[in-house]
Amino acid sequence: MSDYHALNAKEAIDYARSIEGIFPEDAELSSREIGDGNLNLVFHISDPKSGKSLILKQALPYAKVVGETWPLTIDRARIESEALLLQSSLCPELVPHVYIYDSVLALTVMEDLSDHVIMRKGLIEGNEYPLFAEHIGHFLAHTLFYTSDLGLNQQQKKLRVQQFINPELCKISEDLIFDHPYTNAETNNFNPLIGNEVKQIWHNSKLQFEVALLREGFLTHAQALLHGDLHTGSIFITSRSTKVIDPEFAFYGPMGFDIGAVIANLLLNYAGQEAWIADETARIKFREYLLQTVQDVWQHFSEQFLALWQKDSVDRLSSVPGYRENYMQRLLQDAMGYAGCKMIRRIIGLAPVADIQSINDPNIRAKAERIALSIGQALILQHRQASSIDEILEIAKRGLEQ
Amino acid sequence: MSDYHALNAKEAIDYARSIEGIFPEDAELSSREIGDGNLNLVFHISDPKSGKSLILKQALPYAKVVGETWPLTIDRARIESEALLLQSSLCPELVPHVYIYDSVLALTVMEDLSDHVIMRKGLIEGNEYPLFAEHIGHFLAHTLFYTSDLGLNQQQKKLRVQQFINPELCKISEDLIFDHPYTNAETNNFNPLIGNEVKQIWHNSKLQFEVALLREGFLTHAQALLHGDLHTGSIFITSRSTKVIDPEFAFYGPMGFDIGAVIANLLLNYAGQEAWIADETARIKFREYLLQTVQDVWQHFSEQFLALWQKDSVDRLSSVPGYRENYMQRLLQDAMGYAGCKMIRRIIGLAPVADIQSINDPNIRAKAERIALSIGQALILQHRQASSIDEILEIAKRGLEQ
Repeated sequence: MSDYHALNAKEAIDYARSIEGIFPEDAELSSREIGDGNLNLVFHISDPKSGKSLILKQALPYAKVVGETWPLTIDRARIESEALLLQSSLCPELVPHVYIYDSVLALTVMEDLSDHVIMRKGLIEGNEYPLFAEHIGHFLAHTLFYTSDLGLNQQQKKLRVQQFINPELCKISEDLIFDHPYTNAETNNFNPLIGNEVKQIWHNSKLQFEVALLREGFLTHAQALLHGDLHTGSIFITSRSTKVIDPEFAFYGPMGFDIGAVIANLLLNYAGQEAWIADETARIKFREYLLQTVQDVWQHFSEQFLALWQKDSVDRLSSVPGYRENYMQRLLQDAMGYAGCKMIRRIIGLAPVADIQSINDPNIRAKAERIALSIGQALILQHRQASSIDEILEIAKRGLEQ
Repeated sequence: MSDYHALNAKEAIDYARSIEGIFPEDAELSSREIGDGNLNLVFHISDPKSGKSLILKQALPYAKVVGETWPLTIDRARIESEALLLQSSLCPELVPHVYIYDSVLALTVMEDLSDHVIMRKGLIEGNEYPLFAEHIGHFLAHTLFYTSDLGLNQQQKKLRVQQFINPELCKISEDLIFDHPYTNAETNNFNPLIGNEVKQIWHNSKLQFEVALLREGFLTHAQALLHGDLHTGSIFITSRSTKVIDPEFAFYGPMGFDIGAVIANLLLNYAGQEAWIADETARIKFREYLLQTVQDVWQHFSEQFLALWQKDSVDRLSSVPGYRENYMQRLLQDAMGYAGCKMIRRIIGLAPVADIQSINDPNIRAKAERIALSIGQALILQHRQASSIDEILEIAKRGLEQ
């Protein structure tokens, strides 16, 4: 990695031009840095004449968080590009196409998706995405099934586990999702108006017991190759297309963590709608859409997952009567528990989400935050008894009674 | 690995002589090959004049089983020596000392333990080992705790998982322990007199459901670095000393698999005593000793494990009220389930144990086998409800009613 250096705009343009078969010879390339600058440089390289464009994403060897600079391995660029390539082989239409991965520069050259919007932004604006549940269900079913012991040769799976050992990025999740929100940690960042609710969480040992179990699963349960950070900010979307990006947190973990991430972020938006839609009837309707989407995500995921199991299982014992039903129930329970953790961390922890954080009025924001904390806690406390996705919807509905 | 070749006796002697500080200059070394010849060459190199001796263990690039030759990675020699060194750092008195690991020759030079006997042989002869439970409890507690997320930095643990990915040897366990005994597989090998009992197992879907769950845990639950093959043939013993050898199956798996292996092999001997002790009073007494040992193994293990947890936990959330008790109960349940699997595979599967296999009278052997199958099935069927080690003892007692 000794020749690594962070690219500037000119170097990014030269790099893009050197890739054969993308831009015409006479392209007039311009570069725009569109990354958030915390972890990666993201150059959008475009040629207005031909209308062609590309993304160059380069990992920085540090992370800028809370004003400090943390060293962070650029090996995550390898993880990300290898995960993208693997996901692409399983569901090519749902991830950006990767042209090149350059291990020296920790650089991935990939398809430009600027015709899509970040789903979180779309949901905040009140847009509905009728194909999203089907698309993400397909993504989850295929990426999780075919990287697990159910759908992948079990010796090859072990080599995949080895390939995707990802200590530094897992550490971020272990601390920021499963530890800091449950104690008075320096990294925490919450609205002072919800101080009482937060302190109750810090002293709720029943809740923390369930979180400890979920954290243990995250640490030890090498079930499938996860995206690892599957929130609505990692999803580019239009009414017709869904693209899952940024799998730098990829590692072998519990499937429910990815499924739960999708559910949690739909429910965070559901809580945030306290502010975004003023008209009550319209707000109720959009929240119904979000809950229907939660249900549809699980429905599409589980139907497709079971279809793949039927078709392509590599495990003789997985056809034993009762095992499939038991497995799916445990997935639902995990998804519910992890969804709860992912909601709470966005309200108390270091990294908030715009659905709630960008609500200007602190009192309305506090109301949205109380809804999210209430739903999150109930999901965590009840997850080990869950037997139907409807229970998540019921919890979400009760969560509005704040 | 291109310079690898299997050593002959003369080369083994030359190699031993080249190691500084072991044998005197004028040593008259002789070599005896004492391996079973299936997987490894094991040279016992000794100098009668000084009384000094050494073991050279070299992995062969194939396995001889059922008359066939299977290619098998010599990387298992690296796994074995690295596991030995790690275990040695945690409980030096309980594993052989490693002098050298030679990666080119897949060769480990280690302490000679010929003053010990293989525990399986000792138990068949009716010997009691009063310190065994304490020793193996210590071994299990230290090796499992300090390689788990409870006792090892959680990022370093991930690198250990990566280091000990062991697909080929895990495959042997996955097939021979968790799959073949439950179907009419070619590798199976059982006494024709128990054909009915075996067929009942092949058609017992409730049993197979539980086995599928245990198999899933073996495949996915990267809880701690296991020995991976901790039967009484992997234990050298005297009345004062216990040495655990042969960790070539080491990998990150569920702790209960190692604990269960010890319990299973004590109970296989318990079943085999049908033949070995003719006098009924003496047989009852020895079986009581074996059951007491099962109880003491769990007692010593759990006490020491909890003491290490108290002293050296690296996980803040592991001190949440209720978590420790819940964790220990799950360990017991896993140990019980895996013990059951390990008993059944020794009766039906490819690799029998001498405790039972070497009983000459096929009818007495069948009785011992029925006892083992009955105990094994009950352990598997009841494991998820277990809350006390006493339940294993009760199952073992009821198992004699064949």
